[in-house]
Amino acid sequence: MSQERDRPAGDLRQTGMSLKHDREWDYELERIVEAVEERDAETVGLQFPEGLKRRGPGVADDLRELLPDSVSVMISGQPCYGACDLDTYMMKRTDVFAHFGHSPMKQSDKIIYVPLFSNVEVLPIVDSAIGDELATPEEDPDVGLVTTAQHMNHFDEMREYLESEGYTVHTRRGDERLTHEGQVLGCNYASAEVDADQVLYVGGGKFHPLGLAMEHPDKHVVIADPVNNVVTVADNEQFMKQRYAAVHKAMDADTWGVIYCTKIGQGRLEAAKEIVDANKNAYLITMDEVTPDRLRNFGLDAYVNTGCPRITTDDGPQFHSPMLTPGEYKIAIGEKPLDSLEFDTFHGTW
Amino acid sequence: MSQERDRPAGDLRQTGMSLKHDREWDYELERIVEAVEERDAETVGLQFPEGLKRRGPGVADDLRELLPDSVSVMISGQPCYGACDLDTYMMKRTDVFAHFGHSPMKQSDKIIYVPLFSNVEVLPIVDSAIGDELATPEEDPDVGLVTTAQHMNHFDEMREYLESEGYTVHTRRGDERLTHEGQVLGCNYASAEVDADQVLYVGGGKFHPLGLAMEHPDKHVVIADPVNNVVTVADNEQFMKQRYAAVHKAMDADTWGVIYCTKIGQGRLEAAKEIVDANKNAYLITMDEVTPDRLRNFGLDAYVNTGCPRITTDDGPQFHSPMLTPGEYKIAIGEKPLDSLEFDTFHGTW
Repeated sequence: MSQERDRPAGDLRQTGMSLKHDREWDYELERIVEAVEERDAETVGLQFPEGLKRRGPGVADDLRELLPDSVSVMISGQPCYGACDLDTYMMKRTDVFAHFGHSPMKQSDKIIYVPLFSNVEVLPIVDSAIGDELATPEEDPDVGLVTTAQHMNHFDEMREYLESEGYTVHTRRGDERLTHEGQVLGCNYASAEVDADQVLYVGGGKFHPLGLAMEHPDKHVVIADPVNNVVTVADNEQFMKQRYAAVHKAMDADTWGVIYCTKIGQGRLEAAKEIVDANKNAYLITMDEVTPDRLRNFGLDAYVNTGCPRITTDDGPQFHSPMLTPGEYKIAIGEKPLDSLEFDTFHGTW
Repeated sequence: MSQERDRPAGDLRQTGMSLKHDREWDYELERIVEAVEERDAETVGLQFPEGLKRRGPGVADDLRELLPDSVSVMISGQPCYGACDLDTYMMKRTDVFAHFGHSPMKQSDKIIYVPLFSNVEVLPIVDSAIGDELATPEEDPDVGLVTTAQHMNHFDEMREYLESEGYTVHTRRGDERLTHEGQVLGCNYASAEVDADQVLYVGGGKFHPLGLAMEHPDKHVVIADPVNNVVTVADNEQFMKQRYAAVHKAMDADTWGVIYCTKIGQGRLEAAKEIVDANKNAYLITMDEVTPDRLRNFGLDAYVNTGCPRITTDDGPQFHSPMLTPGEYKIAIGEKPLDSLEFDTFHGTW
């Protein structure tokens, strides 16, 4: 059902990873081969994000060429939307476990993170943004700069280019959930908390900049997309309307399902328990994938999702009952004023 | 997408559990309360099959009434289609874990199995079957008798009634995957391997008897459904046509995804490895829920499912590429003749 409906522009599946662009990735297979030799490994597990799963069999082929026949290579078929979303079953049951396409949320000897840096040039689109949606240095010299894990290999280049054009570039690492300075995740934009009214996001797709615009509604968020070669501005209006609509609808709810997500980097048990302990009509529901079909079976009036905030904000309209973030829940039950509505940013690791 | 298409009559969701009938269940909450006291438990996890998830919040309410406020009750939101399908995440992280609606596939101190026996009377529909679809004792005195976990509480009553009518009733326990004599599972009909040409299945829905008819195509399978109050005959023709069609389509496949299901009672790693080791164009893919969306991302020509055979036979047409059982795979690659096609019965526990 849900797949048939219109999906908003920030759709989790519309990330840069799934765009059609002739990109080649360095899978760094030598690191995996080395780990197999060091550990005398018998099993290797590979996990790819959704948009790269199609490359999995080819990577397995290349890897099998490099490894002894006795080593068994397996590919995770679990959905994967971030470094928060490791296949822990596979991780525990393989001697070498490689996670592709995300930077580490937390380092572990159990995990080989292969970042898959993009080979797409970024300076041409940064240049196009200047004087287009990005104010010139004369109009406003201060600019924040953020990007995703895929383009981190070009971060210094972007910063230097902007500086050479006359900008004062503001960057920061954000918090411990983020690996790199200037990095954003779909759920965390702490790296954009900088002293600049405009923030330049360089990367594919609208998923990340829309989150950024929700988290920092006071900032002008310019998208320089080197994959689709377009410059636009992130507009959170549609999302905010959807959020207010969901909160209003949930104000009539008598019964609440409070979701605790069991994915390794998406658990906020305390937040879930706090709600359930204070509301006798609230029920703690645990699951990994939070989907409309799974929730429909419970038939509760409304849900609070303490897992990935992007499921709530982006996929929210796909659900059969209103689904709120923990902050939005407090508004719906009258504990907080409506104008306190804000993006549900996600901190910490696991 | 998949949910929009027509689903076959044996649809996993069309079990007796999901039928609209005024049934009351005994949730045996006193056993859970006792376990909480004995173990000084702080957390209780509840897992329900899909058709009973809607009852979860009410059961949680009743249980919370009986337990100290300090005990935290949580409900599994993971899909659940059998005793093969325990929420192991919840099982490992709660002090008391109760699994409702299925009989034990394997006993464990970690699990309280609550069978949920049906309160529906079975004799009236057994009586209706006699001389209708079931041959009279005069025509054929031998009859096999099977039922599901829900109606096990009436098994002796059914057997005695049939005997009093003049039948010789043939029953057996089947194998270790089954708890009770005469019990069938969606994946295992060893209890119907009896010396009778006709088998009487007493229970709700067509899911189980259709599997039975696939596993034992030589037997006349009569369905006495006390929930919907109908007597019919299980007809596997549609299924068999679909299976042959899938096998034929898969004969053109160059690349194969071989699914190892990570659900506790659905793992057949050796079967999966055997295929992958012998075919360089086959890739081992691990997952818990086997869904069309998850497989589509890999873009392989065909799939072999070593997990739940009912996903393959019942949901197979929903998938975007042909999906075969391990036995059907051997036919598709020419290792076995077409007429060796048979139901993929599932043995063992975990």
